Amino acid sequence: MSGMSPNDTSDMGLVVVGAAGRMGQALIRAIHTIPGARVAGAVERSGSAYLGKDAGELAGIGIINVAIGDDPLPAFAKADGVLDFTTPAATVEFAGYAAQARIIHVIGTTGCSDDDNARIAASARHATIVKSGNMSLGVNLLAVLVEQAARALDADDFDIEILEMHHRHKVDAPSGTALLLGEAAAAGRGIALAGNDVRSRDGHTGVRKAGSIGFATLRGGSVVGDHSVILAGTGERITLAHHAEDRAIFARGAVKAALWARGKKPGLYSMRDVLGLG
Amino acid sequence: MSGMSPNDTSDMGLVVVGAAGRMGQALIRAIHTIPGARVAGAVERSGSAYLGKDAGELAGIGIINVAIGDDPLPAFAKADGVLDFTTPAATVEFAGYAAQARIIHVIGTTGCSDDDNARIAASARHATIVKSGNMSLGVNLLAVLVEQAARALDADDFDIEILEMHHRHKVDAPSGTALLLGEAAAAGRGIALAGNDVRSRDGHTGVRKAGSIGFATLRGGSVVGDHSVILAGTGERITLAHHAEDRAIFARGAVKAALWARGKKPGLYSMRDVLGLG
Amino acid sequence: MSGMSPNDTSDMGLVVVGAAGRMGQALIRAIHTIPGARVAGAVERSGSAYLGKDAGELAGIGIINVAIGDDPLPAFAKADGVLDFTTPAATVEFAGYAAQARIIHVIGTTGCSDDDNARIAASARHATIVKSGNMSLGVNLLAVLVEQAARALDADDFDIEILEMHHRHKVDAPSGTALLLGEAAAAGRGIALAGNDVRSRDGHTGVRKAGSIGFATLRGGSVVGDHSVILAGTGERITLAHHAEDRAIFARGAVKAALWARGKKPGLYSMRDVLGLG
Amino acid sequence: MSGMSPNDTSDMGLVVVGAAGRMGQALIRAIHTIPGARVAGAVERSGSAYLGKDAGELAGIGIINVAIGDDPLPAFAKADGVLDFTTPAATVEFAGYAAQARIIHVIGTTGCSDDDNARIAASARHATIVKSGNMSLGVNLLAVLVEQAARALDADDFDIEILEMHHRHKVDAPSGTALLLGEAAAAGRGIALAGNDVRSRDGHTGVRKAGSIGFATLRGGSVVGDHSVILAGTGERITLAHHAEDRAIFARGAVKAALWARGKKPGLYSMRDVLGLG
Repeated sequence: MSGMSPNDTSDMGLVVVGAAGRMGQALIRAIHTIPGARVAGAVERSGSAYLGKDAGELAGIGIINVAIGDDPLPAFAKADGVLDFTTPAATVEFAGYAAQARIIHVIGTTGCSDDDNARIAASARHATIVKSGNMSLGVNLLAVLVEQAARALDADDFDIEILEMHHRHKVDAPSGTALLLGEAAAAGRGIALAGNDVRSRDGHTGVRKAGSIGFATLRGGSVVGDHSVILAGTGERITLAHHAEDRAIFARGAVKAALWARGKKPGLYSMRDVLGLG
Repeated sequence: MSGMSPNDTSDMGLVVVGAAGRMGQALIRAIHTIPGARVAGAVERSGSAYLGKDAGELAGIGIINVAIGDDPLPAFAKADGVLDFTTPAATVEFAGYAAQARIIHVIGTTGCSDDDNARIAASARHATIVKSGNMSLGVNLLAVLVEQAARALDADDFDIEILEMHHRHKVDAPSGTALLLGEAAAAGRGIALAGNDVRSRDGHTGVRKAGSIGFATLRGGSVVGDHSVILAGTGERITLAHHAEDRAIFARGAVKAALWARGKKPGLYSMRDVLGLG
Repeated sequence: MSGMSPNDTSDMGLVVVGAAGRMGQALIRAIHTIPGARVAGAVERSGSAYLGKDAGELAGIGIINVAIGDDPLPAFAKADGVLDFTTPAATVEFAGYAAQARIIHVIGTTGCSDDDNARIAASARHATIVKSGNMSLGVNLLAVLVEQAARALDADDFDIEILEMHHRHKVDAPSGTALLLGEAAAAGRGIALAGNDVRSRDGHTGVRKAGSIGFATLRGGSVVGDHSVILAGTGERITLAHHAEDRAIFARGAVKAALWARGKKPGLYSMRDVLGLG
Repeated sequence: MSGMSPNDTSDMGLVVVGAAGRMGQALIRAIHTIPGARVAGAVERSGSAYLGKDAGELAGIGIINVAIGDDPLPAFAKADGVLDFTTPAATVEFAGYAAQARIIHVIGTTGCSDDDNARIAASARHATIVKSGNMSLGVNLLAVLVEQAARALDADDFDIEILEMHHRHKVDAPSGTALLLGEAAAAGRGIALAGNDVRSRDGHTGVRKAGSIGFATLRGGSVVGDHSVILAGTGERITLAHHAEDRAIFARGAVKAALWARGKKPGLYSMRDVLGLG
């Protein structure tokens, strides 16, 4: 994961867009704690009540002398990269500015349309873009390992089950990350997840269908997010699991992605590239 | 659990009924490996192809010089106890013989009707009977602990979830043991399980209902039986789990129950009594 | 755990002593989030730089109109209880004031000498005191369950192992909580932990000594505290585990203890009493 | 893992050497249960008391009409492959015969010297040899995944810990498989395990040393073998685990290796090749 060239001796200056939001504040805190990065700018939309406030104080880490502004252009001009968990429309715009400034753009924004993605890809001719629907290093690594394990083991011998647990307030099941892991397992086996998934079990289920991918969901307490992928064969079991303690891991992953991207040529990268497993 | 009085110096002689069946053979093996017990007799139904064969050789432990017979009376007369995982009709009859012989009767038979149970209770005036639907020491202990934990923790603070995994050939969900653990949790809370259980989750589930007891089911490989009860509160989680490696634990539990019952006065006991938690 | 009498309709007013410290702030936040309790006062030692500041603002929950003062007497006089994670000397003094005010005193202070404990016990003639070295509901419950499990299962059949994991900065092993669980297991078996503990294993260890209690320690990342007690028999295993997500559970447990103590007669109670398992 | 060419329509005939030993019997049973393979021969050393006996009956699966003999040459001549968990001296000899017969040789023998390995490599010019110190598919897969995870995650961010549990009779710690997993982790990081391992912890340990690889050992009951590799970062944890239910997995892995090797050109392969991850 070490992508820094020897002459990158100074800290990487990062702009946070959407800096006053919950995720924006988490990004400010993550930059503050990770060596090699510093907050170079903080941007909110015009009209925000937080314009002019210190981004560090707002995020609870004390004054860092970075006032929140509403003009991305001057902020981008003096930065090495931008961290962006905003909205598709804003992200497309920011990608254009990042391309102009020829800097790094780390995108954790979800819900982009095909058209949005095409425009982001166009910006990636000049910007170095890292984009992922889940910025956790651990979850992305787990997905790669699950795909490999599913490819290596015969579906007739090993059954794949995916278990997740989240806090009592979560309203849907299975989680998006559980489905992402299911897609990775299906990809490893060269099948589609749809049609091969078993989403829950109750009552008379019959024997397990060979090659199916099962899901099970637990809900309770304040669990941030636990995911396990079990590959169960005759006489042995492999379990590949991720345990999130803290939602800050998504912010940390974004900073890590920016540090990795420093010095990389323009293009569209994923967290798998950041992990060196692309 | 030590119930042997000081003058019980000799090994306890145990008769296995249904000795040629899968469970009967497991009982023969369990008696053979547990100190303090010996096979005193082996009974099968009249007409069985195994009459006259050596019970030890059949069970794969070598010749033990106990021939399988079809008359329980002489076998019971010279024994200290009988181990019985047969059928309700046979068990009711064996309980009568055990009462006549004033010996111990350990009953793992399932599916007894109210009438069967009444007749077994009547025999318990003269026989020392231990009866349970699940003879595993570990599962019975877990159920006691779950009930206590559910009683101690407020339902508004701690959510209870029950997870089980079994092999790919199991055709129903949740397992009987998972439901037994759910009943224990409900009893601890002073509620009925029925109406408070959530048997599976898929799609838009809404937030978790306070006080409900959730179930989740995994299937795969050759898993003998794993059960976890999770009590998830704000900021902390307790997990009470049982892992079965081997179906022989039910046979071992029956032998342990017989050893515990030695010297106890006639009556109807449960595995909770055997565990000293009755 | 429900100890509130029907006429306790108003919120319980609680004073936090040591209110500006890390634990004091956590207590302010816990009172704020748990229904049925309110912050009635906040005390720091004379000369503290925080005197006069709002206790809620300091704790990050916004202004609650409770200024931090240095005189416990008027604060105790108008409160229902006091939460105290300070020092032995201060706690002994606070216990005296709580006895005068005839209110509840929840003590999480550690390191009290025999003499300190005797003076606290004397105060418990007039104050309702709950004292524990670990205020987590979950850990205290786990210890009770471990003691019962260790009592129920024969030491010749089931081996007890205790596993703990903490963050990379922890400097000693095993954790105090792991040792507390080991003491509970030993108590269940009627033996001393000292002399029966195996604190680590490396190289040629020989076969496991029957009746010993093993420990194993993991260190890494930012793990708040995970503990598992494993009872491993032939063919089956029981695991009793606690997972802490957040250090706030100790503050929450203290508030719960205070709510439980409301209306109880004076005396010295433990968290086992709070859990209804005393 | 599917290595069979379309015209391999008949079952693969496999010779078991050391057929009367514990591992040999497990191999006979594994061949018997896995589709696509059949027992083609059974060899023991001259003078064995089992010569002439039926290999299937001895292994407990009933008569298969394969008598145990002491001459490998005719057995190899009519077989497609040989499964070998014997001794280094015997294995070197069998490799020579396999080369003459131009068949597959699956070697699970441990303790080979450099000279033995050189001679086995020489035989691999004509024989298709698969050799591994651990024939479990699951453990070998886990080792590959651990190496990749250790490579992908920065040692400054993620701490690696290895936990293992085995039955009460195991006399050394950590297990060979735990060390194998530690070597895989070290290889992923480009360091040696020796000098970076922490084999146990007790008392004042100080803070965890960055980049070290920790081990912890549990012993109890009849646990066949559980291994977990934990990568613990700030706010998240990945756990990669293997659970063995049954020692038969080593025999099954050997049969799977033979089936994979069918049709492969001569050479020296590992279980990583069998898994398609070489």
